[in-house]
Amino acid sequence: MERDVGRIAAFTDGVMAVAITLLVLNVEVPHLRPGEGLGDALIDDVLPSLGAYALAFALVGRFWIIHHNLFEKVHSFDRTLMSLNLLFLGLVVLMPFSAQLYDVYTSRPVAAAVLGGTLGLLALVNGTMTRHVLRQGFVHEDRREETEPAVTVGAGLTTIFLLSVPAAFISVHLAEAMWISTIVLRYPLRRLGGLTSSR
Amino acid sequence: MERDVGRIAAFTDGVMAVAITLLVLNVEVPHLRPGEGLGDALIDDVLPSLGAYALAFALVGRFWIIHHNLFEKVHSFDRTLMSLNLLFLGLVVLMPFSAQLYDVYTSRPVAAAVLGGTLGLLALVNGTMTRHVLRQGFVHEDRREETEPAVTVGAGLTTIFLLSVPAAFISVHLAEAMWISTIVLRYPLRRLGGLTSSR
Amino acid sequence: MERDVGRIAAFTDGVMAVAITLLVLNVEVPHLRPGEGLGDALIDDVLPSLGAYALAFALVGRFWIIHHNLFEKVHSFDRTLMSLNLLFLGLVVLMPFSAQLYDVYTSRPVAAAVLGGTLGLLALVNGTMTRHVLRQGFVHEDRREETEPAVTVGAGLTTIFLLSVPAAFISVHLAEAMWISTIVLRYPLRRLGGLTSSR
Amino acid sequence: MERDVGRIAAFTDGVMAVAITLLVLNVEVPHLRPGEGLGDALIDDVLPSLGAYALAFALVGRFWIIHHNLFEKVHSFDRTLMSLNLLFLGLVVLMPFSAQLYDVYTSRPVAAAVLGGTLGLLALVNGTMTRHVLRQGFVHEDRREETEPAVTVGAGLTTIFLLSVPAAFISVHLAEAMWISTIVLRYPLRRLGGLTSSR
Repeated sequence: MERDVGRIAAFTDGVMAVAITLLVLNVEVPHLRPGEGLGDALIDDVLPSLGAYALAFALVGRFWIIHHNLFEKVHSFDRTLMSLNLLFLGLVVLMPFSAQLYDVYTSRPVAAAVLGGTLGLLALVNGTMTRHVLRQGFVHEDRREETEPAVTVGAGLTTIFLLSVPAAFISVHLAEAMWISTIVLRYPLRRLGGLTSSR
Repeated sequence: MERDVGRIAAFTDGVMAVAITLLVLNVEVPHLRPGEGLGDALIDDVLPSLGAYALAFALVGRFWIIHHNLFEKVHSFDRTLMSLNLLFLGLVVLMPFSAQLYDVYTSRPVAAAVLGGTLGLLALVNGTMTRHVLRQGFVHEDRREETEPAVTVGAGLTTIFLLSVPAAFISVHLAEAMWISTIVLRYPLRRLGGLTSSR
Repeated sequence: MERDVGRIAAFTDGVMAVAITLLVLNVEVPHLRPGEGLGDALIDDVLPSLGAYALAFALVGRFWIIHHNLFEKVHSFDRTLMSLNLLFLGLVVLMPFSAQLYDVYTSRPVAAAVLGGTLGLLALVNGTMTRHVLRQGFVHEDRREETEPAVTVGAGLTTIFLLSVPAAFISVHLAEAMWISTIVLRYPLRRLGGLTSSR
Repeated sequence: MERDVGRIAAFTDGVMAVAITLLVLNVEVPHLRPGEGLGDALIDDVLPSLGAYALAFALVGRFWIIHHNLFEKVHSFDRTLMSLNLLFLGLVVLMPFSAQLYDVYTSRPVAAAVLGGTLGLLALVNGTMTRHVLRQGFVHEDRREETEPAVTVGAGLTTIFLLSVPAAFISVHLAEAMWISTIVLRYPLRRLGGLTSSR
């Protein structure tokens, strides 16, 4: 049933490709105020948006890698997996909105909480998919062992992202640091999960 | 002729991936009125849009699953199928417009009727495709039996969506309930169609 | 070299899928004027845009079918074909602009001429690709015969679309009729090209 | 591991297809000033944007061809290649922003420097990917020889694009000429790299 899984992966790639590209629509060409230089406008207005874009791109890209790593070991699916995958995509597509909200209202805890919540739900749905394919035996037998640590990694990601929601109300910078940690701490997290034999 | 059908499916995936992602453009970052908190604006302005987005995403996602389930059993095509598929895609691409219209003018029967009509035409064209591939013998012989119930399901969907057009003029909530029923009633509907042996 | 041609086709599908979906951005949710009903606004403002959308969708869809029919018979490529294909895509991507220009300025000959010119260049580049793959022997030997009539069809399309540019200055409706004729006259045109044995 | 590389290539195609299509959003339907003809508006406002679009499309298209030529020779990957490829895509997605900035502020050195810098980073990351796959032995043994010159071509492109950043402050036209030279000088550059046996 390779071909079927292939088409789910292809549709997922398509949706994630569009969503990840729409992130950049947050980075807007500045309208110069009278007397303002273009260089200043780029540094004051565009650079922070560019930072938010880079962070959101890295986070969505990270989820794409996780999805890719999972689906290359999967040989079949059922309706539950398809519904979970659609739910996953529905949350991916919300990322440009959440990232733009965070970019426009950077200093507001609520905006950071929305972004953290979107990421937390993404990690939760993704973790649920991982457990589901393992439980249903949809993973190639000889790749089962290297897939299992992904459950621990997924639980770790879910915990960090969901905890960033209350953390945002203590300090937006704390929430941001938690998100960045999931990118920086990829290798330690994976080791924690025992996923040492992965490619 | 696997490869050819594959490219039609891939193009369909591409168009549906873009269309389903554009649905989220209806969910806009709020402009705060003086004295308004971001939390209130999210609840008052964004939450209803988010609900309309979730509904439209689920409905387009449902059509993607139906399309996927059909095309994985198809081994050939003719010009009629290609034209029907393009017509199907032309209607899918209208979904972001219809969903936004419904989101902006939620209480107006006309807006609900336009969304219901778009969904009804989608189901009609999709049902016509199903009947066409069965009649022309484009379905793999050993999967024919599990495909036939899809005709009944398609007729059911078409009827519900088209009836939601006049229903919208009685009550917008009635029309909405009918759309949601097509997602919730997936399993009963399929059973009705006798599609009990499907995956 | 199947796989390579496959990736060119896949990239082409991706670009055409995005471009054909962006066509719908021309169809905008109306802003009601005081006292105006939504139904009236839909008929007065949205319906003409919907017509322009349907026409542009059908024309881009037609080019996708032509491209698909050509590339399923091609087994190799060179740098010239890749450059021609990129030029083809560059023109496809202009279609949302040309279609919107025509939608906003329907009664102006210049707008119709721009759309006709875009279509003419598309048909010209496509015809050049067809002749190139035949000349270079990139077409599967046993499908050569059914490919050759596409050259005549391509020349016919190019002629009609390019002639619609001056025709637009006589009457915009004449130009429009010429475009529609390329969709309606598919079968006679193909017969003219001797492509009677095609699928 | 063909299939895995295939999905990376497919996701790359998806992102590049969306990004290259978004370039055209810079070309906007003109709003006529009182007494202004549509023809004049097209020549004065749209034609320069169209030129910027054509240049940006050709440059992104060139990077797609380079990426395609590399990945058709690659049979495996590691996490470093995946991260480099995501970085590459993150920069591709910035191209619509950089191109629009350059289109809106054509005469400003800073805008040209941003576009030149984006292109330079793209070439740098791409060159790093090329060296990485060669070093790690991810290239099919029998295609290794024809891949090696790509390192020289990549270094040449990186140098030209990065030098266009300071050059923009001397003259915007000089920077523009340097970008165009990378399209026009494809064949001499490749010869320089000894890539004479390539297709």
